[in-house]
Amino acid sequence: MPVDTIKWSDQTLSIIDQTLLPDRAERIELRTPEEVREAIHALRVRGAPAIGVCAAFGVLIGARAAGETASVPELIQAVERIADYIAGARPTAVNLFWALDRMRNAARQAESAPNAEAVLDALEEEAIRLLEHDKRVCRAIGASGAPLINDGDGVLTHCNAGGLATVDYGTALGVFFAAHENGKSFRVYVDETRPLLQGARLTAWELMNAGIDTTLICDNVAAKIMAEDKVQLVVTGADRIAANGDTANKIGTYGLAVLAKAHEIPFYVAAPASTFDFGMPDGRSIPIEERAPEEVTRGFGKRTAPENVVVYNPAFDVTPADLIAGYITECGVLCASRPGDFDLVRAAAAEIDQEQTI
Amino acid sequence: MPVDTIKWSDQTLSIIDQTLLPDRAERIELRTPEEVREAIHALRVRGAPAIGVCAAFGVLIGARAAGETASVPELIQAVERIADYIAGARPTAVNLFWALDRMRNAARQAESAPNAEAVLDALEEEAIRLLEHDKRVCRAIGASGAPLINDGDGVLTHCNAGGLATVDYGTALGVFFAAHENGKSFRVYVDETRPLLQGARLTAWELMNAGIDTTLICDNVAAKIMAEDKVQLVVTGADRIAANGDTANKIGTYGLAVLAKAHEIPFYVAAPASTFDFGMPDGRSIPIEERAPEEVTRGFGKRTAPENVVVYNPAFDVTPADLIAGYITECGVLCASRPGDFDLVRAAAAEIDQEQTI
Repeated sequence: MPVDTIKWSDQTLSIIDQTLLPDRAERIELRTPEEVREAIHALRVRGAPAIGVCAAFGVLIGARAAGETASVPELIQAVERIADYIAGARPTAVNLFWALDRMRNAARQAESAPNAEAVLDALEEEAIRLLEHDKRVCRAIGASGAPLINDGDGVLTHCNAGGLATVDYGTALGVFFAAHENGKSFRVYVDETRPLLQGARLTAWELMNAGIDTTLICDNVAAKIMAEDKVQLVVTGADRIAANGDTANKIGTYGLAVLAKAHEIPFYVAAPASTFDFGMPDGRSIPIEERAPEEVTRGFGKRTAPENVVVYNPAFDVTPADLIAGYITECGVLCASRPGDFDLVRAAAAEIDQEQTI
Repeated sequence: MPVDTIKWSDQTLSIIDQTLLPDRAERIELRTPEEVREAIHALRVRGAPAIGVCAAFGVLIGARAAGETASVPELIQAVERIADYIAGARPTAVNLFWALDRMRNAARQAESAPNAEAVLDALEEEAIRLLEHDKRVCRAIGASGAPLINDGDGVLTHCNAGGLATVDYGTALGVFFAAHENGKSFRVYVDETRPLLQGARLTAWELMNAGIDTTLICDNVAAKIMAEDKVQLVVTGADRIAANGDTANKIGTYGLAVLAKAHEIPFYVAAPASTFDFGMPDGRSIPIEERAPEEVTRGFGKRTAPENVVVYNPAFDVTPADLIAGYITECGVLCASRPGDFDLVRAAAAEIDQEQTI
């Protein structure tokens, strides 16, 4: 297991504080919904699947505090309030809203429970189900994608879609971990990923820990290594995939997809079913988070641009489906233009509901 | 005049130490060839035209020290040695070698001079000629390129091809300064330009000082603003242009050119005749400098990547001529595929030789 990003044990939620990496892999406990929301907003925990799971436990933690004195209907109302509150942490990754909706549903389905304690038990069961589900799903994504990598390949990735972006194994990096476990020999080029350097700080750290051949590049080197035939495959994660396959992911992903196409290199997105948003017909309406200028002008404690400079700092961009060769999911490698492929993802969402009823 | 990058007065060479910008615009004096070479290597002075002029004065300074006791032939030999030494500072920008060759030639042409003092006078005359020539040429480049910008345009640039990359006015930024002086209203998007952030530190500073509407972006935002129709024109500088028009420039330029083509945005290179290297048939044989990994892993004074990570840090890439809409030069806006256009550049090189004989 590459990394232990989110842990729930002894009724305590702990995460690796990713803002401290690669210097220190330090765990912090999150004890209130406020701390959970702050941790998501400040990117102490980030990555679409990881913030979904973390938010679910945030609801549970808030509900436990409310549940000490609440009736069942009061508790269900409290869950709605807490979920709304945590939903405000970040706008783009759909897994956050998906996980919060599942917690809301778990509470509502327990409306005939005898007491608040029983509602809390149902909420804990659901949060743990989401956590365990993510572990299984990431391994399935890894198994789906590993055959895409050939011995001797160079593979490019952007940002961090690793164990640190999920509970423990990763989506895009799950593909690399699985291929490495299968004995494949390949090199991963890691975009540093400005402004917050998730590639340099997190992805390089995870891949090196796993013993995978890793080369760090600045984002603007990607085109050069493509022209030099050093890249045979690009794999990134995703924050939200619309019904037509348009994909929001870390800023810079769209540019990579255009460059990959120009160099005839296949570009894949690795993501679980929970990252698909079938309520969103295409990428145009996906909300794109803009973050503070200081992330760019004062990235690491030192000012690197003039005072008062205007900065455009979108955290994500949208890659149109026609630039994406395939979606590496727990249901296999899917294609947006192949009829029925995305129905498999809908079915996977139903499957976790069946797990819920066991 | 936007900035006073290189000054020669009272027999003293001074530059703005660009590693301190945008915090401080501090001048330093360079008193030996060693200091000149170090300043070029450490990017205290950078930009193809600026390092050419600075290197020429480095030869003059070294020759003055040698000339106190030397005969004319000894001094000419010393000039060769000093020029070879300074040439080792950086490999890619051809203006460095062009300026050093001019200084070598000025020394050789003075071989029948009565004494060392007369050789030194010829060297000083040549270095000042190169400095004054750069000032005129940059203004001519600005005048050539300004009509390409329309009111309301968004223009994207990369790295710094400004006053700080030349003696005082800039090449790509010279175009923007000239358009601004002509009353055009437009916005410049500035790539921050990892790893050394010349865009954020230098270009944003110059444009804001000039009162031009400036927006700073991370390099990986360029594709997004192109897709959003915010960019009507891309203009960068150049470090070396081969005979067929292939252009070496700051890493990331090639990717921008590919993205511009995909979005049907014209991509221009602004450079003086001295940046053309007709001895180089195409871009494949242009030497590309690779710089230290620490520029990437410790760029902000703080380590931002794991210890011992492998880094690929090329300082330049090569953009093929077929991606370049035109070359904005002191001879007008040229096209690589239009017969005779590049002959104008050859003629411009001859013109400065005529200036020399005045």
